Amino acid sequence: MAKKVLKFGGTSVGTIERILHVANILKKEFVAGNEIIAVVSAMSGVTNGLIEQSNSISKNFNKRELDVLLTSGEQATSALLAGALIDMGINSKSWLNWQIPILTEGEHSNSRIINMSVTEIDKFLLNKGVAIIPGFQGISKNGEITTIGRGGSDATAVAVAKIFNADSCEIYTDVDGVFSTDPNKIPVAKKINKISYDEMLELSSLGAKVIQSSAVQTAMMYNLPLEIRSTFTERNGTKIFNRENIDYEKSVTGVAYSKDDAKITLIGVLDKPGVAADIFEPISNDQINVDMVIQNISSDHKKTDITFTIKRHDLLKTLEILKHNKRIKYDEINHNDRVSKVSIVGAGMVSTPGVTYKMFRGLAEKNINILAISTSEIKLSVIINEKDTLEAVKKLHTIFKLD
Amino acid sequence: MAKKVLKFGGTSVGTIERILHVANILKKEFVAGNEIIAVVSAMSGVTNGLIEQSNSISKNFNKRELDVLLTSGEQATSALLAGALIDMGINSKSWLNWQIPILTEGEHSNSRIINMSVTEIDKFLLNKGVAIIPGFQGISKNGEITTIGRGGSDATAVAVAKIFNADSCEIYTDVDGVFSTDPNKIPVAKKINKISYDEMLELSSLGAKVIQSSAVQTAMMYNLPLEIRSTFTERNGTKIFNRENIDYEKSVTGVAYSKDDAKITLIGVLDKPGVAADIFEPISNDQINVDMVIQNISSDHKKTDITFTIKRHDLLKTLEILKHNKRIKYDEINHNDRVSKVSIVGAGMVSTPGVTYKMFRGLAEKNINILAISTSEIKLSVIINEKDTLEAVKKLHTIFKLD
Repeated sequence: MAKKVLKFGGTSVGTIERILHVANILKKEFVAGNEIIAVVSAMSGVTNGLIEQSNSISKNFNKRELDVLLTSGEQATSALLAGALIDMGINSKSWLNWQIPILTEGEHSNSRIINMSVTEIDKFLLNKGVAIIPGFQGISKNGEITTIGRGGSDATAVAVAKIFNADSCEIYTDVDGVFSTDPNKIPVAKKINKISYDEMLELSSLGAKVIQSSAVQTAMMYNLPLEIRSTFTERNGTKIFNRENIDYEKSVTGVAYSKDDAKITLIGVLDKPGVAADIFEPISNDQINVDMVIQNISSDHKKTDITFTIKRHDLLKTLEILKHNKRIKYDEINHNDRVSKVSIVGAGMVSTPGVTYKMFRGLAEKNINILAISTSEIKLSVIINEKDTLEAVKKLHTIFKLD
Repeated sequence: MAKKVLKFGGTSVGTIERILHVANILKKEFVAGNEIIAVVSAMSGVTNGLIEQSNSISKNFNKRELDVLLTSGEQATSALLAGALIDMGINSKSWLNWQIPILTEGEHSNSRIINMSVTEIDKFLLNKGVAIIPGFQGISKNGEITTIGRGGSDATAVAVAKIFNADSCEIYTDVDGVFSTDPNKIPVAKKINKISYDEMLELSSLGAKVIQSSAVQTAMMYNLPLEIRSTFTERNGTKIFNRENIDYEKSVTGVAYSKDDAKITLIGVLDKPGVAADIFEPISNDQINVDMVIQNISSDHKKTDITFTIKRHDLLKTLEILKHNKRIKYDEINHNDRVSKVSIVGAGMVSTPGVTYKMFRGLAEKNINILAISTSEIKLSVIINEKDTLEAVKKLHTIFKLD
């Protein structure tokens, strides 16, 4: 017998048939003797529909009222699921954010869960019932409805698992787990059975569709094992835990890529302390997210080249900011808005020599030009021309024996 | 400057465009210097959609969870309307049932509002803001979500008006007000400008589409003036208040009818004390609503005939119950499932002689056979064959100078 938190995403509860299917999964786990808390998202399409409504009222819809609006989605799913279980003869009950309560701090639409009261629900679990909790939401200490960002139901599930001291947290979704690369584009992609938190975070572009990064971070902080699995098959999913629990047979765990990047290079920047801050401060002030930053060592130690990447849709704005930045001096600026980032990720890379060399050699064999390189302990990223993306991913997937 | 409660039904907030229109009505009232509380229904179709979802899970969907499910509808409208006002530069805020709180008693799906806390909202009104409250819902003293029956937003509006000591309560809907008869069937029907609470209750079959009867009862109990008016025109609506406030120029205020009735006559019932109770107790135990009951005086004081009407869809069940009722004896039973009830209603009837005679003469002129008659102080109803309904209504409408 275990205490389990099971989280079901929007597509998993996207229709009444699917809600009944989820109720069957919960029934099975419950009948097997487990203590079950289910965390649910809004039915797929519901949240987007509500956002659309608010947008057609105002592009700048009041954030407090937006939270009131959006939380109605998970409320409905919670009631439908609890009702479905009761109809199957399983004792069940939905709790709303304020009934638990789920206490949050921070601003509307971007709050963090800081606490929950466990007494009542723990009592309900002991008395043999399945507890249903709406994801993505909470209340502030002033009793205002808050939400915790898109995909926030994952964060709710992890917080519930931690605060209720659960044995595991299972994220049910519409795919089998995390794959070594995008299975829709690269058919030889394989499901990863075990992965560490930090690899998962580095593979966020692959994992973004299945679990929210901040939920993985929280799970890592509390060393809480996660499992991502499909609502629609009985297959095992991907387990996410500490690196120590994993035997690394392969140096590389997965190959990730993103295609909506743009690259900017400042050539001949005066190389003096504080120059990077002078460049990036006004950019980040404008809420533009800078991804990779590469600074070459200048030969004469007087001038240097700085390359960085941003999302493509931020390119024009960023160029504008750089042009008006009087604090920096450079000879030339160039940009390329048709680039992509390809990364190999693997905790095994640390102990495997030659990974870097192998990657560059593989790309060279395909005549793929590397525009920039950036490395971290468990990740190696290159910027290449967008047109080469899939070929690069396929080649790397093969080289590192992931097929 | 007045303190006003404005209630908007499902069709009034049925689309984003209409919500914006409602926001404009509120803005106008607010800018005119009034203190405004708006009570809103779910967008039209939303509640039915949610009920459909719960039905497809179970015909016997858990009532507690149904309340959690349904209340999400008004929650969404409240947020959208508050957001729309804020976007127009009007300070506004939505309150959820538990945030006020709206305290109810009674069972799920059929609770009554017993109290609300006024402090916070009154403070908000004084500080110049439009308060938005979701109709149809509340919480029990145990902190469970409750609803107050279909159409319950009217009851919420009246309760809010009473508890907040408002000067008026305006029910905005999709018609111009209450009509002297059904304007869809009888084109000469006229909007009634003023009507008393009790007339309105007797005309419930006309008024059912515009206001819930129990809301009128509550308003009557607290002598709270109501106004029913259209969201979509600027015309005055129908004012509902105490009889004393009305000068009755006409003896009859309106002609109501219902077409889905059935009539049962028990002939030769043994006339002894308690016989009526013996007949109707098992019928009402089965939740069958008996409308008119007419008992003729028997000539020999030993046997009597009892006629009563029920809704047509209850006929077979009622006949079955009568057949199995061993406590009553009668010679014969006959029934007619093609009858309708036509009623003239008017507080002026009391002081106008000859109304009864005029009604019967009018029907006779049209060769309409009267199957049963029932009278009350302000209402006179006849049961006739269904095929004669519209002709009877037209004739009465003309006779009593309502055209």
